[in-house]
Amino acid sequence: MSPPHVIIVGCGFGGLWAAQALRHAPVEVTVIDRTNHHLFTPLLYQVATAGLSAPSVAGPIRHILADQANTTVLLGEVRGVDLAKRLVRLENGDELGYDYLIVAPGTTHSYFGHDEWMPFAPGLKTLEDALEIRRRVLLAFERAERESDPVRRGAWLTFVVVGGGATGVELAGTFAEIARHTLRGEFRRIDPHSARVMLVEGANRVLPPYPPDLSAKAQLQLERLGVTVWPGRMVTGIDADGVSLGAERIACKTVIWAAGVAASPLGAALGAMLDRAGRVKVEPDLSVPGHPEIFVAGDLASVNAVPGIAPAAKQMGRHAARNIVLRLKNQPTRKFKYKDYGQLATIGRNAAVAMLGKLHLSGYPAWLMWLVAHIYFLINFRNRLVVMLDWAWAYFTYQRYARIIIRGMKSQ
Amino acid sequence: MSPPHVIIVGCGFGGLWAAQALRHAPVEVTVIDRTNHHLFTPLLYQVATAGLSAPSVAGPIRHILADQANTTVLLGEVRGVDLAKRLVRLENGDELGYDYLIVAPGTTHSYFGHDEWMPFAPGLKTLEDALEIRRRVLLAFERAERESDPVRRGAWLTFVVVGGGATGVELAGTFAEIARHTLRGEFRRIDPHSARVMLVEGANRVLPPYPPDLSAKAQLQLERLGVTVWPGRMVTGIDADGVSLGAERIACKTVIWAAGVAASPLGAALGAMLDRAGRVKVEPDLSVPGHPEIFVAGDLASVNAVPGIAPAAKQMGRHAARNIVLRLKNQPTRKFKYKDYGQLATIGRNAAVAMLGKLHLSGYPAWLMWLVAHIYFLINFRNRLVVMLDWAWAYFTYQRYARIIIRGMKSQ
Repeated sequence: MSPPHVIIVGCGFGGLWAAQALRHAPVEVTVIDRTNHHLFTPLLYQVATAGLSAPSVAGPIRHILADQANTTVLLGEVRGVDLAKRLVRLENGDELGYDYLIVAPGTTHSYFGHDEWMPFAPGLKTLEDALEIRRRVLLAFERAERESDPVRRGAWLTFVVVGGGATGVELAGTFAEIARHTLRGEFRRIDPHSARVMLVEGANRVLPPYPPDLSAKAQLQLERLGVTVWPGRMVTGIDADGVSLGAERIACKTVIWAAGVAASPLGAALGAMLDRAGRVKVEPDLSVPGHPEIFVAGDLASVNAVPGIAPAAKQMGRHAARNIVLRLKNQPTRKFKYKDYGQLATIGRNAAVAMLGKLHLSGYPAWLMWLVAHIYFLINFRNRLVVMLDWAWAYFTYQRYARIIIRGMKSQ
Repeated sequence: MSPPHVIIVGCGFGGLWAAQALRHAPVEVTVIDRTNHHLFTPLLYQVATAGLSAPSVAGPIRHILADQANTTVLLGEVRGVDLAKRLVRLENGDELGYDYLIVAPGTTHSYFGHDEWMPFAPGLKTLEDALEIRRRVLLAFERAERESDPVRRGAWLTFVVVGGGATGVELAGTFAEIARHTLRGEFRRIDPHSARVMLVEGANRVLPPYPPDLSAKAQLQLERLGVTVWPGRMVTGIDADGVSLGAERIACKTVIWAAGVAASPLGAALGAMLDRAGRVKVEPDLSVPGHPEIFVAGDLASVNAVPGIAPAAKQMGRHAARNIVLRLKNQPTRKFKYKDYGQLATIGRNAAVAMLGKLHLSGYPAWLMWLVAHIYFLINFRNRLVVMLDWAWAYFTYQRYARIIIRGMKSQ
């Protein structure tokens, strides 16, 4: 009899940690992902802002799991699940049977019902997104240098980030640094320093999940970097020439969407109750109600008071895997308990906020902690080394070595 | 009176070296390029074969020339030249006047009148090309892993490189290394080692510009790596399922075009005589006949016995700049003399050929010379350091860290 087959959908933090936790389990594992790489999403904003190259934050899944003999990696997209027959269906119609299923597909962008904004305001979820943002930001300065009309030039030099969560704060802070430092002295007709970076947030403060004192400190640090922070404003329109905030209008050519995430549509295929964000309301052991053979891990799982951050997804992935092993031994599964190691958000050079239980840090100490944590958790040794080198270089020179516009003029 | 205006079209080796030679000249310089980066083309095949990230072989032109106060950089595409009015016309209709013009746009692919082959056989000239080749090669192994039909699987595991010049030899050798070493142990259904790599060359030996003994050694080294070398074969058809060589047919899903280059169409706009490859027949001082204010540098210049390699382009760019300075001083211009430092082509790990005057090297000594020369000439210190690190890593582990497929399943 062949061993039970575990399919893991998605190889982000939830899926990869689940796969690795099954390394010595008496099962066959198949990991399916739409891309060939595990992405270190906490540093994706660095790719978007030209501080790191794409390969620095991504590792080939196949290579990471190469010596895990019970595991097969497939590049593919799961489009549906047949709960009765216990099959997943891939994008080309192929079907794969499972005994256990771990669903960890992560999130996608949500434009709050305004998908027409998408072409004008790319979000940041994939490497492709990051390279597109990099391209738009760098091209905006190039277009400004060639523009003789001062009003149009101003629009090319205005950057609006929608959404003041961790990603929005990181992007806005880094855009300001690029304008003020990285590009200094490189243009002849424009002064990059005159670029305006705006951060718009619907809630009344940035970093809403953080305590108010840290939100205030984050806003202060952003403003010191030159970012205009606009909390309590709702975006009502985005088009090729700017952003509308009710009656107000910002003329700008570059808008980045960091406001909304939506759970993967795969959640609906599981036939379970979804919460308002589209996440699956799982049992305390992370299984799907009525389907003890299916577990959900990471951003798609709706678990009380668990934030949508990498450490939570890892813990859920590992927990789901362990519950499968328990079930194979006919032992009862265990409840998932989130272990909170704190949260960090970086803003710029020597600027960050950190919340570690009751300890609140900001400025240099928080930034240093962010730096050490992120280098430590980067997936493999080589990347860690290269990232350290890149950052040391960037710190001392303000240079960002990945300032490469791949498509140049071609698709203008 | 404002100083004379020199426009440089293209910022490859010819254009960049010309610009830098004008650093202290009493002129205003405008450098126009379609991309924002100077590309270190001799290492572009490493980006295509996932050994280096794109930013490792490209430097932002603006940054390279930032402290050259007399120089402005514009991202743009020159579409035409008005010889009478001394204007260049950009892609958006903008016109820029010049007193002196250096034309150094490089080459593009030539499919020998078969542009219908282009979608099935990408060439390697730009970063975008390199990422497309990387994507196709890595995806082919992924598709093979998912393919159950052995014939179709064989086609996914067959790679044909058309053209046995330096680029073709480098690509074929590296593909073979990837199949035999890099991917070892990472697949469960296919054996990457069984992949076939074929190098097709129309002439009766690979590396036709090299002496026959080095061509023979190159072929031997390729065969040792597992490449099937087919000299003396003309490609008569390329489509989505394979390559035709007269009556013969190779079923394959991945074809790379390294066969033909064509001079930039800008040459025709200069109204001068072109050679059969479309290059401008320049005067001995590199100026265009009848237009002493226009110089051509790099691959677009037809100069007897000068090869189309980076050192030649650099020498021409610098020479054109110096002739402009002489002309400003009302001194006679000088004839261009190519200084031959030799030619190198790499094949794989410890495998290369080198021709240094009468000295012919192959194998490890040639490879070591190639390595040192290429690291030495990389554009800036940081890149040099990162490339050395990447290569040291790759040498000892056989790993290629840039194995990232950016578009994943999206455009399948």
